[in-house]
Amino acid sequence: MATYDLVVKNGSVVVPKMGVIKADIGIVKEKISAISINIEPKEASRVIDASGKYVFPWAVDSHFHIGIFRPMDEDALSESRSAAWGGVTTICSYFRTGKNYLNKSGPYKEIFPEVLEKSKGSFFTDYVYHVTIMTPEQISEIDMLVKDYGVSTFKYFMFYKLLDLTGAAGSDKYLLLNTSYDLGFLYNYMKEVAKANEKYKDHGRISLSIHCEQPEIINVATQYMKQHETGHPLKDYSDARPAFSERMAIKDAEILAGQTKCPVNLLHLSSIDAIEAGKEAVEKHPELNILLEGTLHHLGLSNDIPYGRLGKVNPPIRGKEDVETLWQAVINGDIQTVVSDHACSTKKIKEGDLWTSLAGFGGTEILFPLLLTEGYRKRGISLERVAELTSYNPAVYHELYPKKGTIAIGSDADLAIIDLDREKEVSVENLHSAQDFTPFEGIKYKGWPVCTILRGKVIFENDKIVGKAGVGQYIKRPVKLHYGSGSI
Amino acid sequence: MATYDLVVKNGSVVVPKMGVIKADIGIVKEKISAISINIEPKEASRVIDASGKYVFPWAVDSHFHIGIFRPMDEDALSESRSAAWGGVTTICSYFRTGKNYLNKSGPYKEIFPEVLEKSKGSFFTDYVYHVTIMTPEQISEIDMLVKDYGVSTFKYFMFYKLLDLTGAAGSDKYLLLNTSYDLGFLYNYMKEVAKANEKYKDHGRISLSIHCEQPEIINVATQYMKQHETGHPLKDYSDARPAFSERMAIKDAEILAGQTKCPVNLLHLSSIDAIEAGKEAVEKHPELNILLEGTLHHLGLSNDIPYGRLGKVNPPIRGKEDVETLWQAVINGDIQTVVSDHACSTKKIKEGDLWTSLAGFGGTEILFPLLLTEGYRKRGISLERVAELTSYNPAVYHELYPKKGTIAIGSDADLAIIDLDREKEVSVENLHSAQDFTPFEGIKYKGWPVCTILRGKVIFENDKIVGKAGVGQYIKRPVKLHYGSGSI
Amino acid sequence: MATYDLVVKNGSVVVPKMGVIKADIGIVKEKISAISINIEPKEASRVIDASGKYVFPWAVDSHFHIGIFRPMDEDALSESRSAAWGGVTTICSYFRTGKNYLNKSGPYKEIFPEVLEKSKGSFFTDYVYHVTIMTPEQISEIDMLVKDYGVSTFKYFMFYKLLDLTGAAGSDKYLLLNTSYDLGFLYNYMKEVAKANEKYKDHGRISLSIHCEQPEIINVATQYMKQHETGHPLKDYSDARPAFSERMAIKDAEILAGQTKCPVNLLHLSSIDAIEAGKEAVEKHPELNILLEGTLHHLGLSNDIPYGRLGKVNPPIRGKEDVETLWQAVINGDIQTVVSDHACSTKKIKEGDLWTSLAGFGGTEILFPLLLTEGYRKRGISLERVAELTSYNPAVYHELYPKKGTIAIGSDADLAIIDLDREKEVSVENLHSAQDFTPFEGIKYKGWPVCTILRGKVIFENDKIVGKAGVGQYIKRPVKLHYGSGSI
Amino acid sequence: MATYDLVVKNGSVVVPKMGVIKADIGIVKEKISAISINIEPKEASRVIDASGKYVFPWAVDSHFHIGIFRPMDEDALSESRSAAWGGVTTICSYFRTGKNYLNKSGPYKEIFPEVLEKSKGSFFTDYVYHVTIMTPEQISEIDMLVKDYGVSTFKYFMFYKLLDLTGAAGSDKYLLLNTSYDLGFLYNYMKEVAKANEKYKDHGRISLSIHCEQPEIINVATQYMKQHETGHPLKDYSDARPAFSERMAIKDAEILAGQTKCPVNLLHLSSIDAIEAGKEAVEKHPELNILLEGTLHHLGLSNDIPYGRLGKVNPPIRGKEDVETLWQAVINGDIQTVVSDHACSTKKIKEGDLWTSLAGFGGTEILFPLLLTEGYRKRGISLERVAELTSYNPAVYHELYPKKGTIAIGSDADLAIIDLDREKEVSVENLHSAQDFTPFEGIKYKGWPVCTILRGKVIFENDKIVGKAGVGQYIKRPVKLHYGSGSI
Repeated sequence: MATYDLVVKNGSVVVPKMGVIKADIGIVKEKISAISINIEPKEASRVIDASGKYVFPWAVDSHFHIGIFRPMDEDALSESRSAAWGGVTTICSYFRTGKNYLNKSGPYKEIFPEVLEKSKGSFFTDYVYHVTIMTPEQISEIDMLVKDYGVSTFKYFMFYKLLDLTGAAGSDKYLLLNTSYDLGFLYNYMKEVAKANEKYKDHGRISLSIHCEQPEIINVATQYMKQHETGHPLKDYSDARPAFSERMAIKDAEILAGQTKCPVNLLHLSSIDAIEAGKEAVEKHPELNILLEGTLHHLGLSNDIPYGRLGKVNPPIRGKEDVETLWQAVINGDIQTVVSDHACSTKKIKEGDLWTSLAGFGGTEILFPLLLTEGYRKRGISLERVAELTSYNPAVYHELYPKKGTIAIGSDADLAIIDLDREKEVSVENLHSAQDFTPFEGIKYKGWPVCTILRGKVIFENDKIVGKAGVGQYIKRPVKLHYGSGSI
Repeated sequence: MATYDLVVKNGSVVVPKMGVIKADIGIVKEKISAISINIEPKEASRVIDASGKYVFPWAVDSHFHIGIFRPMDEDALSESRSAAWGGVTTICSYFRTGKNYLNKSGPYKEIFPEVLEKSKGSFFTDYVYHVTIMTPEQISEIDMLVKDYGVSTFKYFMFYKLLDLTGAAGSDKYLLLNTSYDLGFLYNYMKEVAKANEKYKDHGRISLSIHCEQPEIINVATQYMKQHETGHPLKDYSDARPAFSERMAIKDAEILAGQTKCPVNLLHLSSIDAIEAGKEAVEKHPELNILLEGTLHHLGLSNDIPYGRLGKVNPPIRGKEDVETLWQAVINGDIQTVVSDHACSTKKIKEGDLWTSLAGFGGTEILFPLLLTEGYRKRGISLERVAELTSYNPAVYHELYPKKGTIAIGSDADLAIIDLDREKEVSVENLHSAQDFTPFEGIKYKGWPVCTILRGKVIFENDKIVGKAGVGQYIKRPVKLHYGSGSI
Repeated sequence: MATYDLVVKNGSVVVPKMGVIKADIGIVKEKISAISINIEPKEASRVIDASGKYVFPWAVDSHFHIGIFRPMDEDALSESRSAAWGGVTTICSYFRTGKNYLNKSGPYKEIFPEVLEKSKGSFFTDYVYHVTIMTPEQISEIDMLVKDYGVSTFKYFMFYKLLDLTGAAGSDKYLLLNTSYDLGFLYNYMKEVAKANEKYKDHGRISLSIHCEQPEIINVATQYMKQHETGHPLKDYSDARPAFSERMAIKDAEILAGQTKCPVNLLHLSSIDAIEAGKEAVEKHPELNILLEGTLHHLGLSNDIPYGRLGKVNPPIRGKEDVETLWQAVINGDIQTVVSDHACSTKKIKEGDLWTSLAGFGGTEILFPLLLTEGYRKRGISLERVAELTSYNPAVYHELYPKKGTIAIGSDADLAIIDLDREKEVSVENLHSAQDFTPFEGIKYKGWPVCTILRGKVIFENDKIVGKAGVGQYIKRPVKLHYGSGSI
Repeated sequence: MATYDLVVKNGSVVVPKMGVIKADIGIVKEKISAISINIEPKEASRVIDASGKYVFPWAVDSHFHIGIFRPMDEDALSESRSAAWGGVTTICSYFRTGKNYLNKSGPYKEIFPEVLEKSKGSFFTDYVYHVTIMTPEQISEIDMLVKDYGVSTFKYFMFYKLLDLTGAAGSDKYLLLNTSYDLGFLYNYMKEVAKANEKYKDHGRISLSIHCEQPEIINVATQYMKQHETGHPLKDYSDARPAFSERMAIKDAEILAGQTKCPVNLLHLSSIDAIEAGKEAVEKHPELNILLEGTLHHLGLSNDIPYGRLGKVNPPIRGKEDVETLWQAVINGDIQTVVSDHACSTKKIKEGDLWTSLAGFGGTEILFPLLLTEGYRKRGISLERVAELTSYNPAVYHELYPKKGTIAIGSDADLAIIDLDREKEVSVENLHSAQDFTPFEGIKYKGWPVCTILRGKVIFENDKIVGKAGVGQYIKRPVKLHYGSGSI
């Protein structure tokens, strides 16, 4: 009888924080069981030859929006499929009550089981949910969510106080809120997350992710830009949500986090202002281990491209100088995770003009190609750093580590085999999302996954998905709390 | 015929930025005409002997609220009288439309003349108005207000977005606003003040004074404290408007000021948080010449005194450590002006409990006594520094200098003769305001004015007001714009 | 035939940056060949049962002084033996020309082969040399030393400008210098190290380690303390080399490093002053990847202990507040490596009084025990962090990684099996150095190595050294330069 | 009988910190006796009509080197004459023992009387001496120098540790030192100045002026540049004493000043490095009231001019970007005093090549013209700020205020009447120093003194010196200690 169910042989194994190692990987059931200079083929039920390829830990795309614009199960199916093509085995999706998603509000005790129910059987990848607390009542459910449902990351949207997802001044009705959703709410929210963090700190970090844009500024800047359009929609939109609104929001978040001792993640920083403020926050509060997050589109696109309103996203695509500052922050280690902020939409969903259409789009499938091309090749970022940005760091900050996030004995056998020499042009046809457009259209990237393995099962190879929807499981976090500290 | 209408003889003259000089001062009409080692009595129509006394430039109390709770003319009469007793010849009063004051809203073009009309004949001191812009329409009146009405300082209240003067969540109706009064409004407001500043910069600094408290935080902290009263009203109120809400507000103001290039004055800083944030703002934006202001009550009172809800004021009286930090900021020169934030109220006006009663009270009359006792005697602040805090700096920042703010040839002959050895206990009876209570009750101060001269006229001597209401004039600012650069 | 020469079974494997993993380790010849959930005993020529024990990567003690006071070969023999007992498989020893060591000066081209010759056959551990450039001529040998002799770390002593190893104002003769050894020398030195770093940067970091104490200050402070002894020798010595002399020296080093772009390591930081200045240097120059180093004795001892002049070391043992600040820096990640600064001496070598005796002593053998007791048990530092401080980080900064510094396929099979529950009191008798005293005398530590493996060979087990002197090899660095980038 | 001995009529009086006032000034004996809107000519023995002119307080040139290269009495005669032409009534000259000056060393108790003796009768201006302590014995004379000789400012040269005035590595013999003159010396020196400052603090600030250049760096950089001359002597010299050597020296001075609580003045800052480090020092130690000083030549010249080695000065003339940074520091108020650092030399004195010739030259006569042209006209610095930089601030920091430094009743009647419209080209012929060259040759300045009054006596008018040598007096400082606190 073979010792291993599967062996990945002859690959260059990219281990975060360690480097590139020539080794064979032996898998038994769902776990990595052996890493060895040589595993004899005869010891394996199946051998995958990774000669000339690089074996990464599959990515944890820690910022995702399954079901935001489309039915959750349907969206999970198509978008986790796209993720699987792109090198992502764990999707961390944000969920909130209110409009979009399930279009309802109420206690998470009632709604979260429905979320899990709809998710079951729909994912090609493992998944977790970061939960957005929207009401005072839900604040009191935080401890329950950690303990019973394995939620370690929460979220707050700074602009919901005033604006909806199109950037228009919305109303409470929009989000089905029964309260003001302002900094006072955030303060109470943070106090409760901090309390949970204190309670569970031996098992992991309970944190609050924050979308940092100051809506009152955006509101007046948008009004102004509506009357001063220039014909460059992405630039206009950037000016309508000016970078200093990120700076203000980050400062507010920093002070509240410091006051309440709440660990925070500052999401999708898009600009020089945001990076500067984010770095100041990190320096002032080392005890909070503040995470600065970057996204594919803010790293890969600038607002001087002749792309239209379909590229609308919050915060907006910025100028080239901002983009280079973001890359510098990635290189310096200020930005610790790179994510897609994937929100699958369609031309139809995004109908309207620059000001009335919905924001957001998807990109999870190009996570590795973009980082390998723009980061590794163009800017000299090492392969292990790429693995840290996409896998190790998201797993650590969002408490999936050491189950996910590395290649180690006892870790989940989640592997992405990547051909660094494969070059492909991005197009709607080449991607596998349900989205019928992409702002990355026409860009060539070099370095694409060719095979992916989720907990020991091959789900993608030979340019085909071979796994079944439903192979993906919901993961409770912190994993050390829910699966024991020897979980690796 | 005598050369001088009035000569102040034998006094120790306290000249800001210069020191204490033994000199006689000769006055012709409204102006200082000569400063001399000796002026012969025969050259003067009247001689006041200031032997053993100190002659200060009369104070400019640059934060005042004439007419906020009582009819403007009545309030001007009683409170400028109290000011005259206390060593203040120029009152800088804040005015806004909406509830309180004239209880009406509309364009300043219509309302400001009414303000001036009501003021005329009611003041024992000279006076100016700082104007609070409350509506988008009024923003467009800023240039007109500078040019036609001599307004160089504007104001914005950060808490009006959400809260009224009692600290309760108010409604737009309260302030008769037709718009949201949030940071977006402030941004547009600052852009326009910055534009005026740029336009008039050769004549003076057009600035925006800001009351920095973050209302969303206050709202939830107040709700919390209402349910957790401790029996120490001033402490409870301080916790209901926590110091970090000042820090947040100051950060917001700093970023917007930097963005718009708008010179700002950060008013009545009350706490360690506020001082730290204020100093950071000053350091980051030397080009804006940001003013940090302190008040009598935040310097003279701490919230451990057994005083009840009548001591309610915004921002609140803080703890002893905050008070010492404020004094240190005065000593270091971080705080540049000390003001009364005088808002005459009465027990009847302030009826209600800690949470429902109005905030604010008066104190202009003890400006010199408090600073001379707590600053000069206890903490070694020099007499010329006292004159700078009360006269020179307010005059400079609010563009009354060099007409007001010093003792120099050509300046207005505004003098306060002070007996440094006179000691008096503060009590409602000893003060001359219409206010029927005082949180300073029972405190002994040493160093009180004994004679005051407004533009050459004695208006207070021998413990009696001898001038008439109406002697005070409205001053247009910047004085260099309205009276010429040789105005001194 | 067995697959593995040696298997370490059933241990808890402590992998830096990864965590603690239950795994078996298979070794073939000198390398780690497999890490597996299970290796069958029959596959191994020999099995070591590590049940209940923790398997660490053996430490890299990156600050050592082989041969400073005693003949090099003799010292290497006894002190590498002590290191082997204590959990160290790689000794990074500083060498310089001049007095002590080989007592000669000249070109390294001639002297370094002699050093290597004397080392050969004398070590129980692997070893490298950091080289101290002492003359302008030697500066020109830097590139040769990197290329031909595998030296990646150089050193500069700031106090040699003026003082000798006793702290007395020496003369150039002492160090057999033919030049002044001041900051001008350092500047030229840094330029050359920076040039080598630029040249070899794709293979590794060429860096300069600096002993930061300002000798001119020490000179006058020592003169003062000699006349003001208090009867507490360690305190007197600390005052004779005051902490601000470290701050000054670090500032000088920072400015020069920034100017020349020279990567630097700031050695054995002992005080609050040093930590503050070190952190400022790190923040100002992220591009230089500045290393802050801590030592066993500065972390484990404070100058209030009743220990005499034998505890004299440079920089001196400091007060308790300094010690806690150092631990905080270890916890925060500011201090990245912990070392022994081992300089074996004897009572005879250190003869004289507080001012005339030589400074320095050894401690390599308690590296793990001290960190496990004071760090892991008392201050909650994780086991993987201990492995990072002792193994991974020194290997990374001194360019032994990935050959040394972790437990990975292809890395050297250097393992320390540690019994976390073993408790022992430190005494001269219990240690295995040639040193006949120890300032740690009488302290109990819990957590001692029980077996150590060097490149696949057991050299210490059952409280006995079983390897032979000479088993240790000289390692050329950067290992990626000298052994290829696939060296792991 | 006339009331006033002299009246300056109809001028625009420039009062520091106050502004420009139209006033007549009445002088009785040596003091300003009256400032008045109008003084009748009949009241005055003599009237000077200043119509159309500006009346400044005469400058205090607080950095001067009388007698450094020429006999003291001869140098005092010619150079104070030049100062009188240029608007300086008080010369603050640095004196030290050792080579140059009196070419002798010993206790100041013996030497200082000789200095005063040689000065007597030789000055056209008032004068003071800042004293450079050169030996440990002299350190013990500090208190005596303050108390008996009225010295409030001391000095230390950082480069004397190693270098002489030519920039060559000198020997102790050069300075007739019997000790090392290093940072250890400085530390002891500062402790003693701090002690004196503490003792006399109610009367004034006892301070240490520091020439901040790190000599060890200069030494190697000079050796390098000697071998890499470019043909641009001023640039070569700047590179031979690189700006970062100023940064290092300032950091050292800052740390020692903070440690000892010694008030320091950082002299003749020449570069961006120096300004940055100086500002950091000021911010870190507000309690020390650190002075940053600028010089005429660093503000008025840049090293791209085609001027030869006669422009050699320490620190060197820098590049244009440095010059603009210095001006910005003047505008921001970071630089508080502007001085000439006047050291009269001649082509003969400066004989030799770039490396062997002496450094330094004079410029006191163009203090006002340069600041009025480059500061007031080109960069919008106000006239009162010019008066602060040249008169008020030097008087305050060097404890001559309020006797000197302003125009006030009781102050010395030291006035410079300046014609803002007078334009003149600088040339050796147009200046009145004994120096036979000037690096400012050919530059046109607009704004020259036309009449100067020293303590009530006209000493320069109608382009002629009318006073006698010897009119100048030695002033003891702090003036409040030596002449009483009512000294104004």
